[in-house]
Amino acid sequence: MQYGAAALQKLVEQFEKMPGIGRKTAQRMAFYVLDLPKEEGLEFSDTIRQACEKIHRCSVCCNLTENEKCSICSDESRDHSTICVVEDSQSLLAVEKTGEYKGVYHVLHGAISPIDGIGPEDLTVKELLARVNEGGIKEIILATDSDVEGEATAMYLTKLIKPLGLKITRLASGLSVGTDVQYADGVTLSKAIEGRFEV
Amino acid sequence: MQYGAAALQKLVEQFEKMPGIGRKTAQRMAFYVLDLPKEEGLEFSDTIRQACEKIHRCSVCCNLTENEKCSICSDESRDHSTICVVEDSQSLLAVEKTGEYKGVYHVLHGAISPIDGIGPEDLTVKELLARVNEGGIKEIILATDSDVEGEATAMYLTKLIKPLGLKITRLASGLSVGTDVQYADGVTLSKAIEGRFEV
Repeated sequence: MQYGAAALQKLVEQFEKMPGIGRKTAQRMAFYVLDLPKEEGLEFSDTIRQACEKIHRCSVCCNLTENEKCSICSDESRDHSTICVVEDSQSLLAVEKTGEYKGVYHVLHGAISPIDGIGPEDLTVKELLARVNEGGIKEIILATDSDVEGEATAMYLTKLIKPLGLKITRLASGLSVGTDVQYADGVTLSKAIEGRFEV
Repeated sequence: MQYGAAALQKLVEQFEKMPGIGRKTAQRMAFYVLDLPKEEGLEFSDTIRQACEKIHRCSVCCNLTENEKCSICSDESRDHSTICVVEDSQSLLAVEKTGEYKGVYHVLHGAISPIDGIGPEDLTVKELLARVNEGGIKEIILATDSDVEGEATAMYLTKLIKPLGLKITRLASGLSVGTDVQYADGVTLSKAIEGRFEV
């Protein structure tokens, strides 16, 4: 597709690289930006620049932050003896949103995936181990995804941390709330039966 | 939703303002940008800035361009006596994509919509009239959208230009290619019957 303006062409291509954005949406987004009053368009550009320049990893949990330590690690009212290990900041946000969890986090920034060439050394495993070795940790909740990579990562971390004598837990598998049993997939249903509890 | 980093919060909000982008997609886009290597993130910001600074309206047809005249208006091989009037640059691209049209364009940058407070003075009607008055135009194709605003705009332009003695045409209405007659909506089917042709 030729847009007749190199800057426009490049803009569409940039948007198209984003996850879940196809050619048509990218085109609509590009024209939206061009339709903005000039100062708003420049502000948009500036927001991206600032985010790229200011945001980095928390020195403790590797979550994204603008400060040396993220707001959760800096919060004295939280339980710093429980670490919830998540694959990415989005997972952290999802756990935070429940409002149920009062401990702290560790963001791995990925999951082990030999097929994509991602090993433990590409994740923040070293930083997690350093935290554990510093002492004061009672429980590690492995909240990696419930897929092959997430399970492999959880298994790897279990083998690594278990010998240190910590309590290690994994999120429960089972039916999503609101799911009909008849429509649940077999694997999930098996997990739900396996993890049944007495009432 | 609190992201714990103002720059991240602002980034999500910026993406969320875009057409067809909800909170979840905006969040995914923001994290995608933050996951980029820093130089790629800055390049993204720069692409938007450049687009906003370089791209403006063609001095002839009001299409978006980086030059004084757009590539279509500068193209001597095109038929400069036929003007296809479209609502926006995306419509222009759609017509160009057919490869059927060899004339030039005029981009209105909107359609008349009293409910949104958009009148002819907010569109590039004045520029279109100036082109027509300059002479050398044989046909005006009104390719505004087939909705209330598009029809109103076409009607307005017809009344305005018809007295000048030009040939004025409108895109045909009828069944989309590949449509089953049984599934066509009533209005479209009426238009298709009205516009039937002898074979």
